[in-house]
Amino acid sequence: MEKVRVNLKENSYNILIGKGLLGDLENLAEHSPEQNFIITDKNINALYGNYLDALDSYERIVIEPGEQSKSIDVTANILKQMLEKGASRRSKVIAFGGGVVGDLAGFCSAIYMRGIPFVQIPTTLLAQVDSSVGGKTGINLLHYKNSIGAFHQPVKVIIDTGLLHTLPYKELLSGIGEIIKYGIIYDYEFFKYVARNIEKIKKCDEDIMPYVVKRCCEIKAEIVSRDEKEEGLRKILNFGHTIGHALEGITDFSKYAHGEAVIIGMYYETIMAKKMGIVDEEYAAEILNFLDGLGIDLNIDDYPVLELADWMLKDKKNVGGKISFILPVKEGMVKEQMLEKSGVLYYISSL
Amino acid sequence: MEKVRVNLKENSYNILIGKGLLGDLENLAEHSPEQNFIITDKNINALYGNYLDALDSYERIVIEPGEQSKSIDVTANILKQMLEKGASRRSKVIAFGGGVVGDLAGFCSAIYMRGIPFVQIPTTLLAQVDSSVGGKTGINLLHYKNSIGAFHQPVKVIIDTGLLHTLPYKELLSGIGEIIKYGIIYDYEFFKYVARNIEKIKKCDEDIMPYVVKRCCEIKAEIVSRDEKEEGLRKILNFGHTIGHALEGITDFSKYAHGEAVIIGMYYETIMAKKMGIVDEEYAAEILNFLDGLGIDLNIDDYPVLELADWMLKDKKNVGGKISFILPVKEGMVKEQMLEKSGVLYYISSL
Repeated sequence: MEKVRVNLKENSYNILIGKGLLGDLENLAEHSPEQNFIITDKNINALYGNYLDALDSYERIVIEPGEQSKSIDVTANILKQMLEKGASRRSKVIAFGGGVVGDLAGFCSAIYMRGIPFVQIPTTLLAQVDSSVGGKTGINLLHYKNSIGAFHQPVKVIIDTGLLHTLPYKELLSGIGEIIKYGIIYDYEFFKYVARNIEKIKKCDEDIMPYVVKRCCEIKAEIVSRDEKEEGLRKILNFGHTIGHALEGITDFSKYAHGEAVIIGMYYETIMAKKMGIVDEEYAAEILNFLDGLGIDLNIDDYPVLELADWMLKDKKNVGGKISFILPVKEGMVKEQMLEKSGVLYYISSL
Repeated sequence: MEKVRVNLKENSYNILIGKGLLGDLENLAEHSPEQNFIITDKNINALYGNYLDALDSYERIVIEPGEQSKSIDVTANILKQMLEKGASRRSKVIAFGGGVVGDLAGFCSAIYMRGIPFVQIPTTLLAQVDSSVGGKTGINLLHYKNSIGAFHQPVKVIIDTGLLHTLPYKELLSGIGEIIKYGIIYDYEFFKYVARNIEKIKKCDEDIMPYVVKRCCEIKAEIVSRDEKEEGLRKILNFGHTIGHALEGITDFSKYAHGEAVIIGMYYETIMAKKMGIVDEEYAAEILNFLDGLGIDLNIDDYPVLELADWMLKDKKNVGGKISFILPVKEGMVKEQMLEKSGVLYYISSL
């Protein structure tokens, strides 16, 4: 079992990583003496519900799978069930599932009686390397993703890399996009490692996945430890996401897996950096070649540029109407560039 | 103008207190360059809306007055308006009103884009001496008061004691209950001062109200600074509230003003402390005589003891099914006592 520590003073916690960890869930979960809860979705419950049987004193709340569950209505429904089943301020919530379950269950834990402890058990690659670490929780309102939420750190994250074999390839890609991102924004050696081993990663090779997931968690933990509330450094995690989120939005969150959109976003944001002349040409070519070789359709000509820009304008990281882009500068390093809408139109039109 | 500092590291802020402060609202508000918001209710808007005219670039959101506005639906409605009117992560929210507006607007600020800055401008005595200070925000769900919420500190509190003259006597009493509480839990000299000057306080005498409000804010700031998230010391603020909340609940929040219920609660909790033999008899008599002399009907014989106990069992501060009571011990000092339901029945039946 690997362990990564997230240092956040009184909010610090451990991430445990290993194949088969769920077999020991009863010991790892650290029950509260009060009524405990598991929040999961129907798909995950059908696939892995047997692991949860060891926690038979827990109340299990099973939601519909999918992004539409990240709503005010589902939130209210969960909170009502918790009140009715006697959750106290010391009750513990286990978020058992992918990013939707983690964001939603984390948010419910953040606002139930002004905050109760919760444990993340991410079951998808994307959640394991990204959303389960860092304490961002939230739901969607109107067309704004994660517009309502809270920073609420888990008390523990339990990652079983043995679950990844059952993931559909599209969901795997979602995680792979984020894995590549960590290399580009923070650790060039890791980028090269991922590039060398990309075929093994695509097959979730059990010899290397614990290391890959661990290195991603380490990088994220380091960034989050230095900037818990996204006031500075943490923004670099957004590389590929300005264009990526816009692509997800414009296709009604149905065409691309999140990581696919991030891969396409990283591709075009690297081209933007080239046009601005802020990135070394040779290094940019290395990134572009690798992303191009992943076998994803990178064509975005079908989307009206103005609509893409309007989607970008909805991002929380914008300030004064300017749009935030994280762009590569050199090996393992990126920087933020703020652009007016007109600037975005200029760069995107000429991509 | 008086100033009280609330020390909470990076969440520290100032409370400004004085008669007529709202005349200088334009300077005191410290506008964000992004779209700013004022959240208030219809009554307050009719009474004091003119003070807000100086902030003409602010979007004003006006809610229905009363506790029923502290709901998920009203919260969602406010958040949607904020999204539609372009609130960003750096927008500022002014909560302009009594406790309901402060709790609700504070909660909306806490969860909008994972937290944006807000300013409290409390317009009732209760909000000025209690709810506007300390960062507790929240709404009600099912029959559970403030069961959903967040700790989210304001960036500033602006208290104009000149507003108090228009308060109905029942609302004034609400604040007076909390004022008395501060003396009993923390500062015996202040208790005696309040007892000596109670007639002036009932008339909101403008010579003494700034001092009275300031001393309450100082005491609350000191307690909150030492225990922001109510893990220990902060619980002492709950004196009178275990029985008080039960009385509010059993009468459907319609018979008693909050502070009236707290006064009756302090009365019977002092009697409980006497029965337990944990408080000096002479001191207990001093408290009881003073509370008895306030002219409030202290009779609670009409309420079934079992129902009262059930209301108490709903409190967030309970642990392991035990009910938390804060009881007086000696001058300026109280302590927590946890009771089983059977213990509560015993003590309440014999009151």
